[in-house]
Amino acid sequence: MKNGKLLIIGGAEEKYQGVTILRKFVELAQQNNGKIGILTTATQLPEEVGNEYKEVFANLGAADSITIDVDSREKAEDENILEDVQSLSALFITGGDQSRLTKMITGTKLHRLFFQKWHEGMVLSGTSAGASIMGKHMIVSAMTKDEDEILQVEMDQGFGFMHTLLIDQHFSQRARFDRLLGAIAGNPDLMGIGIDENTAILVDGDRFEVLGEHQVLILDGKDSSYVEVTTTEEGSEELTVSNFKLHTLTSGCHFDLKSRKLIRKED
Amino acid sequence: MKNGKLLIIGGAEEKYQGVTILRKFVELAQQNNGKIGILTTATQLPEEVGNEYKEVFANLGAADSITIDVDSREKAEDENILEDVQSLSALFITGGDQSRLTKMITGTKLHRLFFQKWHEGMVLSGTSAGASIMGKHMIVSAMTKDEDEILQVEMDQGFGFMHTLLIDQHFSQRARFDRLLGAIAGNPDLMGIGIDENTAILVDGDRFEVLGEHQVLILDGKDSSYVEVTTTEEGSEELTVSNFKLHTLTSGCHFDLKSRKLIRKED
Repeated sequence: MKNGKLLIIGGAEEKYQGVTILRKFVELAQQNNGKIGILTTATQLPEEVGNEYKEVFANLGAADSITIDVDSREKAEDENILEDVQSLSALFITGGDQSRLTKMITGTKLHRLFFQKWHEGMVLSGTSAGASIMGKHMIVSAMTKDEDEILQVEMDQGFGFMHTLLIDQHFSQRARFDRLLGAIAGNPDLMGIGIDENTAILVDGDRFEVLGEHQVLILDGKDSSYVEVTTTEEGSEELTVSNFKLHTLTSGCHFDLKSRKLIRKED
Repeated sequence: MKNGKLLIIGGAEEKYQGVTILRKFVELAQQNNGKIGILTTATQLPEEVGNEYKEVFANLGAADSITIDVDSREKAEDENILEDVQSLSALFITGGDQSRLTKMITGTKLHRLFFQKWHEGMVLSGTSAGASIMGKHMIVSAMTKDEDEILQVEMDQGFGFMHTLLIDQHFSQRARFDRLLGAIAGNPDLMGIGIDENTAILVDGDRFEVLGEHQVLILDGKDSSYVEVTTTEEGSEELTVSNFKLHTLTSGCHFDLKSRKLIRKED
């Protein structure tokens, strides 16, 4: 059986006008039997956020969605919740704080069930924090770089659907290039994927397609000839890298995750 | 005869403590005979800025520096000013607005004299706007990228000492990666050089060395396989590029401008 598709969104996706990305999600969900589940663990406002997505999905023709309200590890082992997840055609992971997802779900029965369902074809989507969690590793915070601070990128474990990708979101809008570069320099096996707001990648096996309004930046250090963290005379920790590859992709672009190459639109 | 060295500074260089970069400038200037000239055209406060650099250079052992106060095209043709410039060992171009340098100096006798003197070995240095002006082309402004704006990079003519480089400054500190990428995508023959504050490159022929506190980012689109500006369904203009090369260099790194490669520190 083929793994379900993953729709990974850079946050702030349109919910009422246009709605390109969420419309795609509903369309994919409706190719399976079952309900849409909305996982609200990342947010501290699960009811509001859950109800908003329910309304949006209903507007798009999917009346039958439920909130998966897991705000503790106990709930992530709860048989009633696991039963709800068993019935899903697609899972949507909301934004919020990605550390909450790791803290409450990683390593639980629910986490294993997500994998099982995904292997059986369940569609997975996440926005913002819900996008970051898709990788095996994720960025949880980083100080900004200025005269008195050291550039620090903190990493945590994601859910691990995408082993080789390190996903960052709100990318251009929050000027996160430096933090992604720092993270990839420290983890050169990973490919960095910076997804802009109202923009998404749709992963199908070893390929993905870009959807939505802005850009997806790809940072590939696999063939880099030099990576080093240097402390300069002034005491600042700085990154030296050489021969990283960079791509910026837009709606309609396809990318091959194995060869790490853009597949031209006309191919 | 060999062209003079160029010391190109990303702005906000230390003037009283450490002073690594300006100390280097004075050291280079003192290898020639003559005074240091401080070109204050870019700033609207020529007296204050000129006097500050005079004091800093004096602290570093160069008592004999003069302000080249050119705030009109007439002055850039003035024989007295040209005579002053004839006597220089080194020229320092201050920060401010790089458009003022183009407007008042490009194409004048003064501009031609700078080239002649440089060919005869005069050292050239510039910080911030004075760094941008070193290239043949330069970025003068760009709107930030958000939901309702189009990414636009405006270009103007620089003085043209460095034909193949497009220099941006205050680079990490002002999160200018997107604007440099946009400019290089539109001018793929140029190599983008983003210099951080209190950081500089010292160009000697076909090579440069990095000095100072932070990072120099190099963006090379020469071997790119795809460059296109796309208007997405949502009406946003976005950039698609593939296979750009990226380097980030720190103090002590050498880079070859012909082969476009890092020369490893131990080489």
